[in-house]
Amino acid sequence: MEDRSLTKWNITKYSQNLKLETEDEIAREAAMTIMLDGEQYATIVCTPASMEEMVLGFLATEGLILSIRDVKQLDIDEKRGFAYVTLHYTPTLPNNQERWIGSCCGKSREFYLKQDVKTAKTIMTDTPIALENVYALMKQFEENAETRNRTGGVHQAAIATEENILAAFIDIGRHNALDKLYGHLLKEKIPLKNKFILFSGRVSSEIVLKVSKIGVGMLIAKSAPTDLALKLADDLNVSVIGFAKEASLNVYTNHTNVYEARAMKNHSQHGS
Amino acid sequence: MEDRSLTKWNITKYSQNLKLETEDEIAREAAMTIMLDGEQYATIVCTPASMEEMVLGFLATEGLILSIRDVKQLDIDEKRGFAYVTLHYTPTLPNNQERWIGSCCGKSREFYLKQDVKTAKTIMTDTPIALENVYALMKQFEENAETRNRTGGVHQAAIATEENILAAFIDIGRHNALDKLYGHLLKEKIPLKNKFILFSGRVSSEIVLKVSKIGVGMLIAKSAPTDLALKLADDLNVSVIGFAKEASLNVYTNHTNVYEARAMKNHSQHGS
Repeated sequence: MEDRSLTKWNITKYSQNLKLETEDEIAREAAMTIMLDGEQYATIVCTPASMEEMVLGFLATEGLILSIRDVKQLDIDEKRGFAYVTLHYTPTLPNNQERWIGSCCGKSREFYLKQDVKTAKTIMTDTPIALENVYALMKQFEENAETRNRTGGVHQAAIATEENILAAFIDIGRHNALDKLYGHLLKEKIPLKNKFILFSGRVSSEIVLKVSKIGVGMLIAKSAPTDLALKLADDLNVSVIGFAKEASLNVYTNHTNVYEARAMKNHSQHGS
Repeated sequence: MEDRSLTKWNITKYSQNLKLETEDEIAREAAMTIMLDGEQYATIVCTPASMEEMVLGFLATEGLILSIRDVKQLDIDEKRGFAYVTLHYTPTLPNNQERWIGSCCGKSREFYLKQDVKTAKTIMTDTPIALENVYALMKQFEENAETRNRTGGVHQAAIATEENILAAFIDIGRHNALDKLYGHLLKEKIPLKNKFILFSGRVSSEIVLKVSKIGVGMLIAKSAPTDLALKLADDLNVSVIGFAKEASLNVYTNHTNVYEARAMKNHSQHGS
């Protein structure tokens, strides 16, 4: 099998009382230990595909790198499950993810962790999109999710323009899928203006924080958001669409960033 | 609203080009910082319900407690989001989740983390169940998932006999839902023989490890498993059912533990 994200497993399948012994495809999962300057830093359990993006995105999420320029060397031993990373500077490792209870800008900030405060960025530009384009993107996103549809076991994160998906990553973990996308954006130095993130998973506060760290202004998700995620999104000016499907969706924040093309010749006036 | 797992949010709802401004229910999410013997230990972001179970289950998952007897005191300040825990002994905190590459019993053991090795238990008894009973339990499980159905944003974990669900917990995080169940089982000292865990989420290796730590022999999940999860389940003798619905399911490990009642007067002979 070419696809490293899948493997086979013998199952007994029941439908009502009909019994079938068959071989089914299932999602693969593997451990990858990140060695940072020779020291064991963390072990990620993820889908063994796009491992370079996985490691870069994880390091960026952890706040250890801000761009690909911070990375001196990255060697991945996929067979043994080790990634050897050398940075251009000696990172100050957080020995404690202390909770940061501040009160400066926005009520929900009190929930941020210190490490996040350093890297979360308020989105400074609006990114409006036509309703029809969201529907069309979700159609592409679903068609792209072949593996997901085949095994039902993986999440997907993608970067898109208003009209097309540019790159998509899958993983058994929703955070991992988004980390792989983050790693890809860093690696390829893709400009983020007027870009959109499509996401299959639930939108929790950590997902919104990650989107703001990445620096993309709109998150279009197939699943539901939480209240804390939406409060953060309001604070950080991230537009959140949830339950996005090919012909329906909910807009949760920055409502005017989704516009109906018919009613909208000069949509910029509808921005907040 | 009585239900602390839900709140309201103003949304713009689109179906095709139909636009509706409405108030929708969404899942709540809140931070809870665990203070262990006066020191900040960890911050969990979870659904703010069943917090005592959440904290106990989290501590057990981390390997810090093995039973409720290890806990001297537990005070929860829900408003400020702090849990103050005192144990009966001074825990040796793992300063590093080192990867444990062993080779003793079972191929997949090499993926375990050290901390897990200490607490993961091989299941020593078989827990057979009639196919019809699994279907009936999944029906109860779905009916129980009211909140989930209302917001689409939460996972559910439940403990059941062959015929009835005894307790069920929800959370925005699938790990949290299972931790709450774990905390409940510890707190109420519920005997685990001939009990079944029902679970809404994907079955990754960490979920199987957690089920084996809890000490229940069968996991009945609505979603898909990964290969590593199934290898671990084989090693640890955990029976895994996936894609479990009211009239269909897949059996992935210990296939003979699911039997058809009609063909089965004395099913114990079919155990592996």
